[in-house]
Amino acid sequence: MEPELLDRYAELIVGFGANVQRGQIVEVRAELGKEELVRRLVSAAYRRGARFVDVNLFDPYIRKARVEHAEDIDFIPSWHRERVLELGRQRCARIALSGVSVPGMLDGLDPDRAARDHFPFIPEYIRVINDGTTNWTGSPCPTPAWASLVHPELEPEVALERLWKQVLHVTRVDEEDPVAVWESRLHALERSAERLTERRFDALHFEGPGTDLTVGLLPSSLWNGGFSETADGIRHVSNLPTEEVFTAPDPARVEGTVTATKPLQLRSGTTVTGLVVRFEGGRAVRIDAETGAEALESMCASDDGAARLGEVALVDREGRIGALETIFYDTLLDENSASHIALGSAYVDTVGEEDRERINDSEIHVDFMIGSDDVEVTGITHEGERVPVLRGGSWQL
Amino acid sequence: MEPELLDRYAELIVGFGANVQRGQIVEVRAELGKEELVRRLVSAAYRRGARFVDVNLFDPYIRKARVEHAEDIDFIPSWHRERVLELGRQRCARIALSGVSVPGMLDGLDPDRAARDHFPFIPEYIRVINDGTTNWTGSPCPTPAWASLVHPELEPEVALERLWKQVLHVTRVDEEDPVAVWESRLHALERSAERLTERRFDALHFEGPGTDLTVGLLPSSLWNGGFSETADGIRHVSNLPTEEVFTAPDPARVEGTVTATKPLQLRSGTTVTGLVVRFEGGRAVRIDAETGAEALESMCASDDGAARLGEVALVDREGRIGALETIFYDTLLDENSASHIALGSAYVDTVGEEDRERINDSEIHVDFMIGSDDVEVTGITHEGERVPVLRGGSWQL
Repeated sequence: MEPELLDRYAELIVGFGANVQRGQIVEVRAELGKEELVRRLVSAAYRRGARFVDVNLFDPYIRKARVEHAEDIDFIPSWHRERVLELGRQRCARIALSGVSVPGMLDGLDPDRAARDHFPFIPEYIRVINDGTTNWTGSPCPTPAWASLVHPELEPEVALERLWKQVLHVTRVDEEDPVAVWESRLHALERSAERLTERRFDALHFEGPGTDLTVGLLPSSLWNGGFSETADGIRHVSNLPTEEVFTAPDPARVEGTVTATKPLQLRSGTTVTGLVVRFEGGRAVRIDAETGAEALESMCASDDGAARLGEVALVDREGRIGALETIFYDTLLDENSASHIALGSAYVDTVGEEDRERINDSEIHVDFMIGSDDVEVTGITHEGERVPVLRGGSWQL
Repeated sequence: MEPELLDRYAELIVGFGANVQRGQIVEVRAELGKEELVRRLVSAAYRRGARFVDVNLFDPYIRKARVEHAEDIDFIPSWHRERVLELGRQRCARIALSGVSVPGMLDGLDPDRAARDHFPFIPEYIRVINDGTTNWTGSPCPTPAWASLVHPELEPEVALERLWKQVLHVTRVDEEDPVAVWESRLHALERSAERLTERRFDALHFEGPGTDLTVGLLPSSLWNGGFSETADGIRHVSNLPTEEVFTAPDPARVEGTVTATKPLQLRSGTTVTGLVVRFEGGRAVRIDAETGAEALESMCASDDGAARLGEVALVDREGRIGALETIFYDTLLDENSASHIALGSAYVDTVGEEDRERINDSEIHVDFMIGSDDVEVTGITHEGERVPVLRGGSWQL
């Protein structure tokens, strides 16, 4: 990638996505193989007056060794938990780079152990996210191995170039004024979220090939989208790119069958394809898949909330990711290409104070895509009226 | 390097150097570019029953950005200090890999700022070392850039091969039974240390080309060498390789002039050549050098103890490093090739309880080589008698 574009991307992530403030400590988290962008993020953060940039580089081979050999796969040294909680207490900024650096790293290992290994994304991150004490963003960073996974038909160098081009397109870095383009799109997402919140639907109904799913909403479910804001009022963009609006469903009222519209890449590295999930009384009671079913089932068994939904998200056709018709095997990108639901934890700011005890709680959060132009999304009012929400990927509200 | 030899080296570091115990957390610290050995260390540690292997990979480019841009170069996030102290409290094992991964990285930057940047080797490590609460070792790991610095006359690949061969030779990995060879050498070092302690010299006198230096010893100065032992009795080898015996001098009684016999590579990346230091009343009052004087002066100004000695060490001719007649630009190797002294902190276990308040205290510890076959080392008794200690690099005691 040309150094100039990399620098533009780094500036956008630091200055607009995470919105790093003068005097802040900035955590940067990435797997090995992304050093070129990491170094530019570090320079950009210091230029904006960061007090310290704390870089955490993870080697996926080390994860593999842990999953293979560690006696207690759930053990994490106390200082890692403390560190993440301190990021919140000290009001730090956080930047994470997504994108698999070594696909299939955990293939052949015990899928149960692989699924239970969350490190370095430990549960304390979810707490800090829910506390709204850090301004943060996650953005994709291509690697050669990831590019070849996404574009196996291309020569490695061409594949990498293609993936970078796609990433810089969906992040609007290829625009003359990426920030202005983002401001416009993020405000549109905010207006869609407002309209959904105003309707106070009792449930959403998804209908399409292999899908007939009703997702109950809570009385105070709030739709989110666009900008995020910390408890102290720092505006940031949690995912760059983002194309979704989302809320917390009622974890007790999900019924029916849903067929994933895209493969799902678990954090353990397992790819789940051909996924069909049956929900009863809010719980995923049956998981079928062509590949990866066992790993997903194991994740769903990890705690009480892991088999229930914590998020339902709608994505319209205006986004740039779906239009590329590419499966990225990266949740950050794929979840913003289509409507989706997530097993596991909910975000507390997607519900009113009165329902905070009712939203789902879990150590996992696994998004999977269930939307496409062929999937109709209908709102069901408390009176039982059916209101079209998305048809052919376009808003009907 | 052949995988089999790398594995043998990793096993030696984990099993004999750090002597990792079942159930211990193991910290592994290395700069980028050493992943191949790091991964083998991790596997070896888990195979020995480590509870968790906590790998810290550092990118020297990040250090450069911090030295270049950070407003407060002395600031380090609290969780890094806590983490290191916890390593001690939780009785962890520690492994660090030495060897420059990018030579001259900080060239051209403010030498004062470069010298003040200790991260990630923060002062808490010295405290944990002095507490004897971790079993640990430091060992060299070649990188292509380091190899070309050491062997600039060779083709890069040949240089790397040569450096690896030297490293595996000095660490005795090229022996059929490295542990047996080490046991024998380490016991010999222990016997030399015992003989020196028994003599209770009042001072050591170094005489050679450009050197006429008297280093006062404390009444209870204890000579150390060979194995180390934690407060809980875990035997380990702090430096692999080690060829030295060392003690804490009297920080108030160092007089004369000393000429370094080898270049010195500062942690900041600066190389100090042609170094001549004049001591008066224990303080380094004048530092001259062909290159790097300013960076060393800046380090000596960092706190009260930074211009006084914390260590004096003797190295005989039996070691394998000096015989290679190679300047490694790596303190771990170079300090074990020749007798040396260190500015800065002393090790508390090199003196009796009664003199613990008298040894030098500092946040720095900078070793520099002052010994060679041409430098005579003489012990001076409290009665003023002169006793030959090293002549032509051979013990006279």
